[in-house]
Amino acid sequence: MSFKEKKLEKIMIIGLGLIGSSVALGIKREHPDVHILGLDRAETLDIALEAGIIDEKVNELNVAEQAGIILLAVPIQATLDYMEALSQLDLKKNVLITDTSSTKTEIMLKAKEVFKGKNVTFVGGHPMAGSHKSGVLAADVNLFENAYYVLTEKNEDLQELLSGLHAKFIIVEPKEHDQVTSQVSHFPHILASSLVQQSDDYAKNHPLVKHLAAGGFRDMTRIAEADSIMWTSVLLSNPEEILGRIEDFKQQLDTISQKISEKDEQAIKEFFENGKIIRQHMEILKGKGAIPSFYDLYVSIPDEKGVILRILALLQDISIVNIKINEENREDIHGQLQISFKTEKDLSRAREMIEFATDFEVEGEQDD
Amino acid sequence: MSFKEKKLEKIMIIGLGLIGSSVALGIKREHPDVHILGLDRAETLDIALEAGIIDEKVNELNVAEQAGIILLAVPIQATLDYMEALSQLDLKKNVLITDTSSTKTEIMLKAKEVFKGKNVTFVGGHPMAGSHKSGVLAADVNLFENAYYVLTEKNEDLQELLSGLHAKFIIVEPKEHDQVTSQVSHFPHILASSLVQQSDDYAKNHPLVKHLAAGGFRDMTRIAEADSIMWTSVLLSNPEEILGRIEDFKQQLDTISQKISEKDEQAIKEFFENGKIIRQHMEILKGKGAIPSFYDLYVSIPDEKGVILRILALLQDISIVNIKINEENREDIHGQLQISFKTEKDLSRAREMIEFATDFEVEGEQDD
Repeated sequence: MSFKEKKLEKIMIIGLGLIGSSVALGIKREHPDVHILGLDRAETLDIALEAGIIDEKVNELNVAEQAGIILLAVPIQATLDYMEALSQLDLKKNVLITDTSSTKTEIMLKAKEVFKGKNVTFVGGHPMAGSHKSGVLAADVNLFENAYYVLTEKNEDLQELLSGLHAKFIIVEPKEHDQVTSQVSHFPHILASSLVQQSDDYAKNHPLVKHLAAGGFRDMTRIAEADSIMWTSVLLSNPEEILGRIEDFKQQLDTISQKISEKDEQAIKEFFENGKIIRQHMEILKGKGAIPSFYDLYVSIPDEKGVILRILALLQDISIVNIKINEENREDIHGQLQISFKTEKDLSRAREMIEFATDFEVEGEQDD
Repeated sequence: MSFKEKKLEKIMIIGLGLIGSSVALGIKREHPDVHILGLDRAETLDIALEAGIIDEKVNELNVAEQAGIILLAVPIQATLDYMEALSQLDLKKNVLITDTSSTKTEIMLKAKEVFKGKNVTFVGGHPMAGSHKSGVLAADVNLFENAYYVLTEKNEDLQELLSGLHAKFIIVEPKEHDQVTSQVSHFPHILASSLVQQSDDYAKNHPLVKHLAAGGFRDMTRIAEADSIMWTSVLLSNPEEILGRIEDFKQQLDTISQKISEKDEQAIKEFFENGKIIRQHMEILKGKGAIPSFYDLYVSIPDEKGVILRILALLQDISIVNIKINEENREDIHGQLQISFKTEKDLSRAREMIEFATDFEVEGEQDD
């Protein structure tokens, strides 16, 4: 069946939180004629219908039997439960089912198990975008703009359906997905929460810990404030890879411990040098990479009313990513007004304009 | 001898990099009459004299014999070497010597050793501020504004001399200083560099690691780009405390590993919940604390020219700390225009103004 025919079928979205409702808006941007059925709590469905996010409210799962495409946008455990329940239904022939959860191996194993011998195509998905906001009220058609959207296999119908999300689709094997995300996402959350916990333990005998923690500590622990329920479910769903990263990290720590014990100055220097070079290199990979590389301009401004506005007025034709006003100097915070640009050209233009129009000291560099 | 008398004596600053020259400017702000001798490379001294940072260039250490106060603003090992060398000189009676290096135990042990039986008061110091810039050209009278300035003991002369820095003096025992900073600063640098190193190792078989690393990873590894020579010297100077933190952290990791292995959902949830609560609590300590707590306003703005300027013009009477323009949505980055304020009152006023003058969606919250 072609996508054109699939489009004539109904699409069912289970779960209209931030992800589900934003996906719905993205679908409708490119395919305004699709008919989207939504399943969620009654109040959520009312809002979603009112806002044009869905076309029809559904309060029973068996309505899924009418759908040509089913999208699950619920937490991991709920995804597994819905997959089980859907497999009991008399779904349409060639129905396409996909999910949006943060781990993929467990999901794909479940799919193999419950949809075995059935005329179901299950494609695992993980749109790697989000927001501090949640719920249908936060629905945002641009949520996935330029974000990676992992699919466990190529599927033209699904990619066509989701084209209006303007995401970057990337095909990744389930195991590989869970390994890579264990390193760059799951394990870092454990690191951050462990560092916070350790500091709190240590603060019991060293209360200054809570006062002298500065910018570096702050950055390293920011994600410790992430949603505990979501991260618990990720750890439960991807335990082996995460445990592997923890054990491996302990070895990394042992290696540097050894060097410190031996007072091996050269080796310690190499440890820090390597870290620096690797991180800078990761950023050079930008464009394709997920760590954006910015071009920063530092402007030394007097503490006077209107100065920032004056500078921004000068730069109004240039695309700015971030403006940081540092009123406090700390060991690891850059100084004064920091303006970040996406390209070196923007940086140069901005620098010229500020130097031409003001006598403020300006310094530019490529940074993260 | 009173400070008034001390002031009539010469002050010698050894090392006119960012720290030494900024301290000099801070001293002169409050005490314009002091006579500051500077010791550094000839080119640095020329700049410092020209800029009014010092009053007299010195090219031999024995000129220290004329000084009533000597301030060492050089790296740790150089500080130790200069202390040794100073102890060989015929210094003034009751001379006050202080340093600015990042560790204190090793420095104070050296002081005890080399100045034993001499008429020297040595007070260890650690001004906890800095910049991405370095050198005398980056000298900034406001560098230490509101920053913590650790002293190993109370010393009225020294605190009076440095009052123009507008720093927050705090008396901390050397060992306590090195313990606290090992937890909140030295060890986090090891964590960041180790995470980068681990990811790089893992990327050899999982190249997607370099592509899927997102905001959380970026924040956690930022300080891996810090100065490798400085951090090497810190590790060499404070090995015991740092090794203790590493061993302790391995136990933290073992604890969470155990919970993951046991699939102990409740315990994992508590792990993340605790981390979240502790970190939020650290920020509540603000004002006194070093992690600033800000009040954030999120404004959903259209992608049109002049919109940001229009909003900032509305807010020109309100003190803004940071403005972030998020054009990309990622799993852990907040959306669109984020404006941070220092007080809840500023946040409320800004919110009212924007809601009154525009039809943009506005959301406010206390954040980090």
